[in-house]
This record gives sequence, structure tokens and C-alpha cells, in this order.
Amino acid sequence: MDDKIDLAAKLALLDQPYRPGIVGYLNDYKLVVVKVKGEFVWHAHDDTDDFFLVLRGRLTIQLRDRDVVLEEGELFVVPRGVEHCPKADVETHVLLIEPRGTVNTGDAGGALTVGELEI
Amino acid sequence: MDDKIDLAAKLALLDQPYRPGIVGYLNDYKLVVVKVKGEFVWHAHDDTDDFFLVLRGRLTIQLRDRDVVLEEGELFVVPRGVEHCPKADVETHVLLIEPRGTVNTGDAGGALTVGELEI
Repeated sequence: MDDKIDLAAKLALLDQPYRPGIVGYLNDYKLVVVKVKGEFVWHAHDDTDDFFLVLRGRLTIQLRDRDVVLEEGELFVVPRGVEHCPKADVETHVLLIEPRGTVNTGDAGGALTVGELEI
Repeated sequence: MDDKIDLAAKLALLDQPYRPGIVGYLNDYKLVVVKVKGEFVWHAHDDTDDFFLVLRGRLTIQLRDRDVVLEEGELFVVPRGVEHCPKADVETHVLLIEPRGTVNTGDAGGALTVGELEI
């Protein structure tokens, strides 16, 4: 992982929504791409903020008091401890940055929980 | 800084190359946009990796043994301690992610060193 990373090429390796792939690292953080379609699960990360940058499509990050709608080239950082639930009507490509070991479903767990996979 | 961040709109606020603006934070990291044109200065960051994502244009990250050329949607993480010197022939827009307090010119200092500015 010491070469440049073409995010679109990495995303092309993913065939299902909500199956994130690690494309690189920044110190103790993992750089992750994921396809989003449909609704994820409400969850929070008590120990870390959560970075979302939309590369393609449109992502709605539902918060308990409002929705944040991200178009291409827009990013949002969900503060630690804040419940959120991503969703997208069209297939949407997202760059996530989180500390290594962060579980995708946070405190919620459940069927959408997946391990860390490098692609 | 609790709302979404439109990176293109933030970049439009910058009027000079190599004058970075902080657009948000992720835990102890700053999220920075910068316009690149011409050559920067050779430097290294001994304590941190250095994240570059090209949003527009083409960025060459010169390393001592090779060049890494990044097009739009490509990213590269310069490992800590590795000397590098960014350059761009056309105005190029970049997202940087670094620990708060990271100096833009690393160990080199000099005229291109600037403080941290939120935009």
C-alpha cells in the first residue's frame, strides 16, 4: 500500500452496498471506500468522529434532529457519540476515514456488521 | 463547523497557491484544502504521514526516488519521515488531512511556512 490509490478503481472492486474496503492508512486511521444504497442502521461511535466524503451520487446522513444531504465533493464529520443513519436512493460512492478497529455499525451491531477488509 | 462542507466552495475562498485553509476537524486531525500551482519546498514530517487527495487538476508529489502523479480522485499518503515536494503545472485543488499543529513546510521552514487558518 505504498502507491497511489485510485478511488474509482477501488470502488469498482466492490459489488455490494455497505461492504467497505480499506484502501490505505494514515497513521492510526484507515481510509475506506464504500458503496451506499438503501438505508444502513442507526448507530453511534462513542470514541471517534466519523468522516464521510461523497465521491459520486448523493448521501443522506440522518441525524435524530435533521438530515444532512451530501452531494459529490461534499463532506461531513459526524461528531463522536452522535447517532446517525446513512442512506442513499441511488448508488453512492463514499470515502470514510476512521481509526483502525472502528466497527462499521458502531454500538448497534447486527447483521450489517462486517470485518476490516483490505482491497 | 458542525455543518456539511462543500470543498469546491471552500477552495473558491482561497486566492493564492500554497495558502491552506482548514475546513473542519476529525478528532485530532485537521481537514485542509489548498490550491497548488508551481513547486512547493522539499520537506518531511517526522511524526506523521501526510494525506493528499486531488479534487481537481493534477498533482505531482516528487519523492527522492520517483514521482507520484495524482489525477482527480486519486490519493497518496506520504509515509512519515519521507522527503517530498509537491508541484503542479496547472492550478490543482487538494484535500489534505494532517494532525492539528502539523506545519505545512514540515522540517524545512522558510518563506512558504504559514499558520493554521480556518476558512
